[in-house]
Amino acid sequence: MPLVNISLQKGKSPQHLRAISDAVHRALVEAYRVPPGDRFHLIHQHERHELVYDADYLGIHRSEDVVFIHITAGKWRDTATKQALFARLAALLAESPGLRPEDVQVVLSPNDRDDWSFGNGLASYVKDA
Amino acid sequence: MPLVNISLQKGKSPQHLRAISDAVHRALVEAYRVPPGDRFHLIHQHERHELVYDADYLGIHRSEDVVFIHITAGKWRDTATKQALFARLAALLAESPGLRPEDVQVVLSPNDRDDWSFGNGLASYVKDA
Amino acid sequence: MPLVNISLQKGKSPQHLRAISDAVHRALVEAYRVPPGDRFHLIHQHERHELVYDADYLGIHRSEDVVFIHITAGKWRDTATKQALFARLAALLAESPGLRPEDVQVVLSPNDRDDWSFGNGLASYVKDA
Repeated sequence: MPLVNISLQKGKSPQHLRAISDAVHRALVEAYRVPPGDRFHLIHQHERHELVYDADYLGIHRSEDVVFIHITAGKWRDTATKQALFARLAALLAESPGLRPEDVQVVLSPNDRDDWSFGNGLASYVKDA
Repeated sequence: MPLVNISLQKGKSPQHLRAISDAVHRALVEAYRVPPGDRFHLIHQHERHELVYDADYLGIHRSEDVVFIHITAGKWRDTATKQALFARLAALLAESPGLRPEDVQVVLSPNDRDDWSFGNGLASYVKDA
Repeated sequence: MPLVNISLQKGKSPQHLRAISDAVHRALVEAYRVPPGDRFHLIHQHERHELVYDADYLGIHRSEDVVFIHITAGKWRDTATKQALFARLAALLAESPGLRPEDVQVVLSPNDRDDWSFGNGLASYVKDA
């Protein structure tokens, strides 16, 4: 169900981008109960001056490898599940492609079951559709 | 009121992009009670490796023509109205530019009346603004 | 806390883009109680045909300098605070880089405290995290 927008500075290899996407998907499957086939990622590569961010907000030092992961997903997860997702994202992205945990920024935008159509004009998660 | 982000693989003609935008807008007007003048679409063209998606999730086969339509719009529509929107989007995009219904992915992100300013620094949909 | 997506037509100078970002951030700090260090903006430059908008919706005339500001932020602000934000955005963007108030389009997407991780795998705004 999640639609994931992944934003970062331009210049990484396709392999690096793929490793980020792989880690994000694995974290969603392992910590957020997302089905293995439910993977929809849009990657946005920005020029340096198109990314404006504070390098030290909350005392966390962000490098030029910073990645913004904006996940639109169902709103029925509780706080503990969200915390598990954040932790798993940072851990798996540290494994590959080797991101510093400080560089993993995550934002969740929750929505509802009837907000999704995966094709054929149907509300895919509505029982009576 | 909707803000629509339309994402697809790079390489289509401006005419193709326009046809997608036209169909999306017509579906919103016809099935979602959006005023005819209320049209705000941002089109994102991605390199192939910047779009990562499962080609068969839920048994729906997606081609390289897949389009992701992310609609931020008011949250007061009910499930039946959302279902009508999904159906109309798939039908109109099949007419023009000729998308397969399997390639039409839609995500809704609902918000509130006071979340919109269409210019002049005013909350356009708040009565007492 | 906000994640801001700023979208406009391609062709402006980095200085122009920076002035937009500066004004957006200042408005968020002054009118939306955002901490001064809490700044995360993603700027999207589109080709003309990738931006489809009605130039006169609600009787507001938009020029080719139109800017779409999509702010994902905590949902606890009330309508008066949102109205103050819209007004401040238009006023500060008029000062620099000199945008017409008619060209400032704002959309808010509210979420919750536990929807944010600013790094290190933690839910940054959850007390017991």
